[in-house]
Amino acid sequence: MTVETVDFTALTRELGDRARGAALALATRPTADRNRVLSDLADRIEGSRAAIGEANAKDLESARSAGLSGALFDRLRLTDERITAMAEGVRQVAALPDPVGEELERLQPPSGIDIRKVRVPLGVVAIIYESRPNVTIDCAALCLKSGNASILRGGKEAFHSNTFLAGLVTASLEATGLPPAAVQLVPTTDRAALQPLLRMDDRIHCIIPRGGKGLIRTVVENATVPVLKHDEGVCNLYLDSAADPEMATAIALNAKTQRPGVCNAIENLVVHEDFAADHLPALARALHEAGVVLRADEAAHALLVTHGVPVEVADHDDWSTEYLDLVLAVRTVSSPEEAVRFINEYGSQHSDAIVTADETTARHFLAAVDSATVYWNASTRFTDGFAFGLGAEIGISTDRLHARGPMGLRELCTYKYEILGHGEVRA
Amino acid sequence: MTVETVDFTALTRELGDRARGAALALATRPTADRNRVLSDLADRIEGSRAAIGEANAKDLESARSAGLSGALFDRLRLTDERITAMAEGVRQVAALPDPVGEELERLQPPSGIDIRKVRVPLGVVAIIYESRPNVTIDCAALCLKSGNASILRGGKEAFHSNTFLAGLVTASLEATGLPPAAVQLVPTTDRAALQPLLRMDDRIHCIIPRGGKGLIRTVVENATVPVLKHDEGVCNLYLDSAADPEMATAIALNAKTQRPGVCNAIENLVVHEDFAADHLPALARALHEAGVVLRADEAAHALLVTHGVPVEVADHDDWSTEYLDLVLAVRTVSSPEEAVRFINEYGSQHSDAIVTADETTARHFLAAVDSATVYWNASTRFTDGFAFGLGAEIGISTDRLHARGPMGLRELCTYKYEILGHGEVRA
Repeated sequence: MTVETVDFTALTRELGDRARGAALALATRPTADRNRVLSDLADRIEGSRAAIGEANAKDLESARSAGLSGALFDRLRLTDERITAMAEGVRQVAALPDPVGEELERLQPPSGIDIRKVRVPLGVVAIIYESRPNVTIDCAALCLKSGNASILRGGKEAFHSNTFLAGLVTASLEATGLPPAAVQLVPTTDRAALQPLLRMDDRIHCIIPRGGKGLIRTVVENATVPVLKHDEGVCNLYLDSAADPEMATAIALNAKTQRPGVCNAIENLVVHEDFAADHLPALARALHEAGVVLRADEAAHALLVTHGVPVEVADHDDWSTEYLDLVLAVRTVSSPEEAVRFINEYGSQHSDAIVTADETTARHFLAAVDSATVYWNASTRFTDGFAFGLGAEIGISTDRLHARGPMGLRELCTYKYEILGHGEVRA
Repeated sequence: MTVETVDFTALTRELGDRARGAALALATRPTADRNRVLSDLADRIEGSRAAIGEANAKDLESARSAGLSGALFDRLRLTDERITAMAEGVRQVAALPDPVGEELERLQPPSGIDIRKVRVPLGVVAIIYESRPNVTIDCAALCLKSGNASILRGGKEAFHSNTFLAGLVTASLEATGLPPAAVQLVPTTDRAALQPLLRMDDRIHCIIPRGGKGLIRTVVENATVPVLKHDEGVCNLYLDSAADPEMATAIALNAKTQRPGVCNAIENLVVHEDFAADHLPALARALHEAGVVLRADEAAHALLVTHGVPVEVADHDDWSTEYLDLVLAVRTVSSPEEAVRFINEYGSQHSDAIVTADETTARHFLAAVDSATVYWNASTRFTDGFAFGLGAEIGISTDRLHARGPMGLRELCTYKYEILGHGEVRA
């Protein structure tokens, strides 16, 4: 097929029609059927190490020719260990409780009708992601478990790996008698095929973009399908005047350095001026020794310079930058209220924390900081599905509608009302 | 101000900034404060009958000059009775339980952190609506009760009425010490002011369009802010071969004729061929006598003609048309499965019903029909917040993310995780 002959709208429409059909079929299949396909898939992944490696080698080869290196190149790679982890991940999803069918509420209004609010799959979920090929398996497994049909649109760097992995999923669906269109990989990474996908709101019920700012913005700007964003984390740690300096140091180091490239790592350290005067130099030195570059406001900068701690001057953009790196902006405030205002203005409403021994201050911070997850005396790094005990997660929503924070299986569901009557009519 | 000098982007930005500030302030105000403003508002509405009437008279005058008549003209009118109903509605909302602050879940993972999932307001909600001015008060009250700041964008026909009513809300906010920007009416109905509102996703957390198909499509096509659609209802009633003919007739008449202009009235009557042969002529005659125009498929048409019941021929468009009028499309099927397929294909996934005495068929229908509300032996007309016992509703969502079906106060909320630690860091 040459580029000229591909009708992306027709191709996407076909994917959508097939997905909708599969979703309707899945809706009445029991838990056991959905678990059977996952178990088959896990075995199939482990039994296909060599072939997965071959497909992946093609992507790695292209990446090398294209000059890709470092973290991006590493993300593409499916090592033996990662293949095992994919299979294990699928088994873990199979072992999770079925979110579908649970009665969420029962309403019995005076009219006599009996209303059950029941959790059901969303329907058709599209996931748009970038380089890492294991996302193909993770998302397929989570969508299948939650009874959703999925349309997966991976990045071009991982095209061969994704195609092979999606083929394994199709084989498992066929082998276990589920509709093969329950999981479909978009068979092209041409950007022109993205637009019709984003606008097919009569077939797709939700789009989850997972990737960089550019990808997410493209999806938000163009989609008519409802979007659940997994956007950036500009997370803040506030050290109150009543913070224990040891706890403050441990949490600051953990939240910044334990894994700086993830969305729940902190980007701003907000420090009460009293705490700063007594403890910031030592804390800043510890961060510096852990490899962190500090960018401070005027007051903190002057203080750190006086104490001989290496520090740069922060500018206004620093307060809202997601570094995803060993860089930390430092801001001084003169009250907890000022800290809350700063965090609500410059943070991304993802994960923010306070360290304080003062319960009144802490309670106010928990209530007033307008973020998905707000911590008192703990590291922001806990924001994820596993750490919350939700099991596997499809991501961390930075939206407020439907799902906020870590999204597990239940967040891939909606509900319906099933109503039993005895001939009731409206008066 | 002439049209040339209005900078709609700047005007909208200012509304957004003020709303965001008000939302953050509201988030920490107790229930009593929010109820106090509602109680003040109800009194103020009842004490302003003459002035409301004067403002409304200006809109009615313009409408008359513009040649508006019938239902559209009637919707604009604020009679004394409707003014009383508005005030009563506000008092009812005040009396509802506060949705904010409820602990929805508690998670205590092995790490030792203590996670509370708590219901909180969405933040800033924009509501875009058409002619009826009472929507201004209804939406203001529901948003205030649920702790949200709202931006209300009414239709141009009701501009004077809306402006006066919004002024009452502002006065109540000021009188009770809440931020006046908690409820703002967009001070123009210029269409050019809509676009910046729809795209202000850094300030507005949710848009609810309430109105005709055209309005909803404009919002969906242009918004980057998440949208909760209140779209059309192409509702279906399926009469199974095991349906009791008396119950079938009562439900069909109620669902079609009790109030044909609303979204939960039926537009399609799907009839099993066996039921049709025995009972459709009598049922169709009853519908005809109630003023309903029938548009039937070939089989039903032939049957009804034979029995001398007036009937038109349906074409393909009829199956997906929301008449909102005394018109009903009639479709024959040869099995419950065919009925389910028809409903999932042509309905709008709003409200659908089966009449049958066969429990197995009913259970399958409830599970397989992919709609927000599915009824067994009851009229689709029950789909609304009051009939469900949820109290006042802001509308009926035809979306699946966040809220599906009747939306009450709880559906105007999201949640956050408040996490208590003792210095825990991520290993």
